Amino acid sequence: MVRPRLKDVAELAGVSIKTVSNVVNDYPHVSEETRARVEAAIAELSYRPNLSARSLRAGRSGVVALAVPDLDNPYFAELATNVIEAADRRGWTVLIDQTQGDRAKERVVISGIRDHLIDGLLFSPLALTGKDLAGRDERTPMVLLGERIGTGRSPYDHVGIDNVAAARAATLHLAERGRRRIAAIGVQRTAVAATGRLRLKGYRQALAEAGVPADPSLVAPVARWGRADGAEAMSRLLDSGAPDAVFCFNDTLALGALRTLLKRGYEVPGDVMVMGFDDIQDGRFATPTLSTVAPDKALIAQSAVDLLAERLGGGTDKAHEVCVPHRLAFRESTDLPGIT
Amino acid sequence: MVRPRLKDVAELAGVSIKTVSNVVNDYPHVSEETRARVEAAIAELSYRPNLSARSLRAGRSGVVALAVPDLDNPYFAELATNVIEAADRRGWTVLIDQTQGDRAKERVVISGIRDHLIDGLLFSPLALTGKDLAGRDERTPMVLLGERIGTGRSPYDHVGIDNVAAARAATLHLAERGRRRIAAIGVQRTAVAATGRLRLKGYRQALAEAGVPADPSLVAPVARWGRADGAEAMSRLLDSGAPDAVFCFNDTLALGALRTLLKRGYEVPGDVMVMGFDDIQDGRFATPTLSTVAPDKALIAQSAVDLLAERLGGGTDKAHEVCVPHRLAFRESTDLPGIT
Repeated sequence: MVRPRLKDVAELAGVSIKTVSNVVNDYPHVSEETRARVEAAIAELSYRPNLSARSLRAGRSGVVALAVPDLDNPYFAELATNVIEAADRRGWTVLIDQTQGDRAKERVVISGIRDHLIDGLLFSPLALTGKDLAGRDERTPMVLLGERIGTGRSPYDHVGIDNVAAARAATLHLAERGRRRIAAIGVQRTAVAATGRLRLKGYRQALAEAGVPADPSLVAPVARWGRADGAEAMSRLLDSGAPDAVFCFNDTLALGALRTLLKRGYEVPGDVMVMGFDDIQDGRFATPTLSTVAPDKALIAQSAVDLLAERLGGGTDKAHEVCVPHRLAFRESTDLPGIT
Repeated sequence: MVRPRLKDVAELAGVSIKTVSNVVNDYPHVSEETRARVEAAIAELSYRPNLSARSLRAGRSGVVALAVPDLDNPYFAELATNVIEAADRRGWTVLIDQTQGDRAKERVVISGIRDHLIDGLLFSPLALTGKDLAGRDERTPMVLLGERIGTGRSPYDHVGIDNVAAARAATLHLAERGRRRIAAIGVQRTAVAATGRLRLKGYRQALAEAGVPADPSLVAPVARWGRADGAEAMSRLLDSGAPDAVFCFNDTLALGALRTLLKRGYEVPGDVMVMGFDDIQDGRFATPTLSTVAPDKALIAQSAVDLLAERLGGGTDKAHEVCVPHRLAFRESTDLPGIT
């Protein structure tokens, strides 16, 4: 594992260090024959030039940044894993940033403070506003993940899923299984909670469509989307609302809700059905296993990396809008014997 | 371990710092002869200029790398979160690498391929050998996390926990609760599985200490440490070994084992007690909640970042060995009414 130096390459190729440097830096005035010999020596030794002069000239560092709210949330950890794999296939290294969904930190991400280090940015913001984005004058290519920000035309590529349709389908599934007191956990009382609002919209559409009365006392707000928040919200619902099903806006909320239900002696799905969103691994090994909305995370990551590569290649100016498909995963938490 | 600075290059080449900077930044007005001399000095010292002029002046990029096997494993996701927080308090950005515990990828991490981008490296290897480490001639400071590698004196700072003592305490807890058929899930049949070997050692020590016979059929090997592996290994144990308790070498194995037990109609902890290792969040919301060994992850992260900062400050040459404390978290999966 001793790393080869410029002079090792020069020795093997039988040329001067300067000549190797000329080849590495792609200077002219090197004969084709010499260039071929040096390149063969570079390949032979697996020499990797690391002088920044070359990166500066090429304008590339081979590093892209991925900014997400929270790796502690398995959805983002799984998404990051997928992004790293997709980037790796292009030879890119991924630098990961956590913003905690904090607007100040998200503004730092788009401010270009680290843009001398990175070629491009994949960003899943939570709190950023259209105004924040409009004020960005950095030139580092950026692809947005998650919800669309603002209502106008965006100059940025965007990869997301159809949250309204997914939440609607998840809620309809509960109604189709005969449930009439369908609760929702995950509304956030903050100015910026686009994902929650979209999933609430889908939930309400489904209730109307199924002819199930919408009872505001069955909509439980939370501060964050963690297990503890889901557990606490479920407790409130059981005290006041007598639900027979609950649609949670993500799986960690659902796993928290499931914990409360089982601890308090409710049968799942018999007494209360539970449906989540995200299809994180944890849900597949819970007891009962968790029914959920499964977005295609690998495709989200691949699409984002491909869009960024297109930008880096000087591709199209038009911003792309990619909607990645999702499917419903029906598991034990909504599965009653005798119902098909 | 001190990283060469611009002025070291200038000294060796017999030119001014300004001239080195001109070469690095590829400015004109540098004679070919001077340029060649500076480049030779750069190669000789393995000097790695940072990408921005500002970083060049400071000699720092403000970026450190964290290399872990797998962010999909919640332990590493939680550790990464803690490292990012500790680094953030020093104004550092963290670049995250996934190695999948693959030796080739781990060798790339220590090869310095990205060292022009980073000031230091925090590395939790799985497959790396003492020989790999001994061959490293890179000067970027590195702090190792996890198990010690090799048996000799290491030049690298290291932060870990006492795996043998922790596994021993976890197993003793099961014996103290009257269990006599205590299984272990997590042994890996690979040349490099140091963590598993240490935890197996602690398990065996505890059995001997408690006077519980060690039955080899109760030790279930796995390929990896994921939920599916734990579920499958538990299934094998139930078919052949009739255990009344199981110590799993990490929490994801334990959550998989728990799933199998409940699915097959066993009561936990009544029929079989389950004990994990890592204290990931998932285990606190499982039903039953999961008893586990809780290493102080925040302190692991903080210690690693502090050690790296000391190195970057030009601190001590002596390698530090930090053993971070752990505690046992007793939850429902080992808790029987009437036993205290």
